[in-house]
Amino acid sequence: MNAGDDPDGELLARVFLTRVIEPGDEVAGRWVRECGARAVVRRLREGGEPMPGVSGKRWAGLLARAGQAEPGRDLALAREAGVRFVGPGDVEWPRQLDDLGDARPLGLWVRGRPSLRMWALRSVAIVGARACTEYGAHMAATLAAGLAERGWVVVSGGAYGVDGAAHRGALGSGGATVAVLACGVDRPYPRGHTQLITRIAEQGLVIGELPPGDHPTPSRFVQRNRVIAALTRGTVVVEAAYRSGSLVTARAAQRLGRHAMGVPGPATSGLSAGVHEFLRGDAVLVTDAAEVVELVGDMGELAPDRRGPVLPRDLLDASARRVLAALPGRRAASPDEIARGAQTSQDDAIARLYELRALGYVERHSDGWKLTRQAMISVQGGRHGC
Amino acid sequence: MNAGDDPDGELLARVFLTRVIEPGDEVAGRWVRECGARAVVRRLREGGEPMPGVSGKRWAGLLARAGQAEPGRDLALAREAGVRFVGPGDVEWPRQLDDLGDARPLGLWVRGRPSLRMWALRSVAIVGARACTEYGAHMAATLAAGLAERGWVVVSGGAYGVDGAAHRGALGSGGATVAVLACGVDRPYPRGHTQLITRIAEQGLVIGELPPGDHPTPSRFVQRNRVIAALTRGTVVVEAAYRSGSLVTARAAQRLGRHAMGVPGPATSGLSAGVHEFLRGDAVLVTDAAEVVELVGDMGELAPDRRGPVLPRDLLDASARRVLAALPGRRAASPDEIARGAQTSQDDAIARLYELRALGYVERHSDGWKLTRQAMISVQGGRHGC
Repeated sequence: MNAGDDPDGELLARVFLTRVIEPGDEVAGRWVRECGARAVVRRLREGGEPMPGVSGKRWAGLLARAGQAEPGRDLALAREAGVRFVGPGDVEWPRQLDDLGDARPLGLWVRGRPSLRMWALRSVAIVGARACTEYGAHMAATLAAGLAERGWVVVSGGAYGVDGAAHRGALGSGGATVAVLACGVDRPYPRGHTQLITRIAEQGLVIGELPPGDHPTPSRFVQRNRVIAALTRGTVVVEAAYRSGSLVTARAAQRLGRHAMGVPGPATSGLSAGVHEFLRGDAVLVTDAAEVVELVGDMGELAPDRRGPVLPRDLLDASARRVLAALPGRRAASPDEIARGAQTSQDDAIARLYELRALGYVERHSDGWKLTRQAMISVQGGRHGC
Repeated sequence: MNAGDDPDGELLARVFLTRVIEPGDEVAGRWVRECGARAVVRRLREGGEPMPGVSGKRWAGLLARAGQAEPGRDLALAREAGVRFVGPGDVEWPRQLDDLGDARPLGLWVRGRPSLRMWALRSVAIVGARACTEYGAHMAATLAAGLAERGWVVVSGGAYGVDGAAHRGALGSGGATVAVLACGVDRPYPRGHTQLITRIAEQGLVIGELPPGDHPTPSRFVQRNRVIAALTRGTVVVEAAYRSGSLVTARAAQRLGRHAMGVPGPATSGLSAGVHEFLRGDAVLVTDAAEVVELVGDMGELAPDRRGPVLPRDLLDASARRVLAALPGRRAASPDEIARGAQTSQDDAIARLYELRALGYVERHSDGWKLTRQAMISVQGGRHGC
């Protein structure tokens, strides 16, 4: 966000509030909904009587935090680290997060080239145990690669185990992946995943509710899960013991009307016991990416792909237009070939291709990308019209 | 069956028909329902015009078989081999088989001490791949042992792989098991399971539709499956490839309103693929015996256990009364101790205990058996009354 993008100070107020209010705080979310972010910031700065629904002690805590908030500095720090702030008013805001009601994030800090909104349109979460088995890691990576090969974006939490395997599976097949962190996006957590998270920021997106430099806490991990659940069309659990955090994510997905899926494993494995219990409820058993897509692909209303491109070519941003122009007429091309044609990096090409996928312009076939039939028709129609 | 039990020749006619009509033949089943077994036998013996719904060629085939049928000899042979014939008119007939309509067996050949009707009241089928993995065999045996320990009867097809593991699991925990064969019950199939099937006949029951000496055919295996499905309260599939015969059994169970269950396995295993596909439909995922019992135990209408004994003690047969009398007042006893008290063999004691379990007199606790609360009350009530 640049100052020029925020003439009325709404986004700057939200940046301020991400320093003061914990993720998922529904009481504060209600203040923002009812009074607006700027009014809440004013109240916090003035330090008067507590806002409704909060004790004097908690109010004092919020005031103390507010006293230290420096939204301008946070934005400047973020910009230096290649991080932008996306709020509900922004074109990049994924509107499905509005389903969270008063628990909706105040905004998201975003690292990476692609449009979060575009990518989230066709995304699936893969979550599971940190201490997963080799089987769990194999299934997470295979599912993620299969989803990426079908043009789907893989969302996870950047953690050890299943999360990491899912991100790596997507990256490894030249696909799209989003890590949702429970800390500042400039501060990779866990430390051992610094390299992985850096790579995700290059080829995909690293996002989170916490402002730069902020650290994770147990409750922040739990709240992060609701963002993963709300952002995606469905959540797949790969290995989870009883009462595992990933089951929390999947149950949140169910409550939000998203698809909840689980990968079976040996009935003798404690790390599949939570998944099996979940599958004995309403969750759907899935064993490969085709089954996941069969399920989440039904929610056609979120994505325009079946009806062809809905956004006129002229409204695409310049780099997306360049990538689109670099696609050959009828055959599939690799991201590498497309990047060269568009005179950009392969990572940027991948970012744009998944955006164009969400808009219905292109589709992925295993390793290559090609124009959709609808896109070819619209090109030809356009040519004839000119 | 003795001649004295069949004054009107109905059962003898059915014995005759088991030599002539293939299991599951619904056209012939309709003849029997509409005209009675004896009239059908008369028509087959007279050799006149074909019965309705059958070609001249097929009718000729039936007449040829009828010309060779010797029901009296079959019954005598069976008796020598310790095999009885149970028809729909018999007190031992499991009435749930009537749900098969015109595909209902003409009768069942039964080897073993226990009452088939009593045992089938509280029974669960465990079926699956012949070429199962070690995991599949482990799960089948563990489930069967767990069901037996909870006083449930394990039904399967006597085949290699999952079937054999299920029977062995039940036998090994001193439990009740029934093998439903696709051939004469005096002719163990597969040959390699001769010892196992003999042991089942000693401790449990070996049953089938085919008369003594008859051999299995592919269609007889398929038709055998409908008996397993109809006899039990639910069918659990442990490992099955796509299009496996055990899935046929489980789907038949579903159509008959029984519970259909599947044991998950690694998504990477082809021998779990059929089960997983099944679980993606209406089947319920189960991982242990407790989950199976939780499901099938709901069908309270089939068994009187929750309402206490319904059959007065005086109507129990002599050996069941002796076994009941051998149970200690309040504590659990082993089958061995009970057998000694009842002056019978342990196998006979187990046969009677599961019958008494179906009638609500006793319950199983892991290795031991004890009187149910209702049975104790009825004993005390009886004593006070006298």
